[in-house]
Amino acid sequence: MQRTNFGEMACSIARTLDVIGEPWSPLILRDVWVGLTRFEQLQSELGISRKVLTERLNHLVEHGVLERQAYDQRPRYEYVLTEKGTELIDLLIVMTGWGDKWQSGTAGPPVLYRHHACGEISNAELRCAHCNQPMHANDVTSLAGPGGAQ
Amino acid sequence: MQRTNFGEMACSIARTLDVIGEPWSPLILRDVWVGLTRFEQLQSELGISRKVLTERLNHLVEHGVLERQAYDQRPRYEYVLTEKGTELIDLLIVMTGWGDKWQSGTAGPPVLYRHHACGEISNAELRCAHCNQPMHANDVTSLAGPGGAQ
Repeated sequence: MQRTNFGEMACSIARTLDVIGEPWSPLILRDVWVGLTRFEQLQSELGISRKVLTERLNHLVEHGVLERQAYDQRPRYEYVLTEKGTELIDLLIVMTGWGDKWQSGTAGPPVLYRHHACGEISNAELRCAHCNQPMHANDVTSLAGPGGAQ
Repeated sequence: MQRTNFGEMACSIARTLDVIGEPWSPLILRDVWVGLTRFEQLQSELGISRKVLTERLNHLVEHGVLERQAYDQRPRYEYVLTEKGTELIDLLIVMTGWGDKWQSGTAGPPVLYRHHACGEISNAELRCAHCNQPMHANDVTSLAGPGGAQ
């Protein structure tokens, strides 16, 4: 039997993928992040069907990543990132760095990030929250946590 | 018309999703990372069909994220992360932190990471490669890069 209930796996990666585990959801979050917050804007930018866009927006709202806000008196709605959604943008920033390096070919990065604190064009690095040294695949050992599978 | 050729979008996020934009690929990478490198191990751990697992492994090999290595004389093969694949684990580390915080409920994190450099149980933080200050959604402005859409 194929197990596809990612949200119930005892794994935070699987549970994150339960929220954004297909390509459209991260791209919707990308667009909302840069200010394309209305249904028509998202549909035009992504070239996605209205049906799929509606499903993905509902899914992201149900999971507390986006919320609907009325923006005029009819009312019409736009989508904004919640705190939970805003923290998910970390993933997109890391995706950008990897895609820039490995998937951009000779044309170079499609988008650059200017970091407000220093004013420089920059990328994000993963650092340990405890000691501030780099924290990548070969810098850690995985251990069973309290919420692991019994 | 629905556009689904993510690899051709002028966006490093879309191009990354072209490689891992469905739930199984990141979970396969997770398992290979922790040492489940053989087809039968992956199939057993993930509860995925042989057909889907074969397709996803072929896709990840074609994209240079995994490579096949013979491990005995028949030969039989195991899958190992390339440098490109190893750097993709950054994404999983960030997913883990987000899923731990937002999707773990009261049980707590399923898995903990011990950071070799300091020996502590820790999470990764995103820091600017230039100034080492935090680099999250609200810390950057996006600008057009050289490889952007014309």
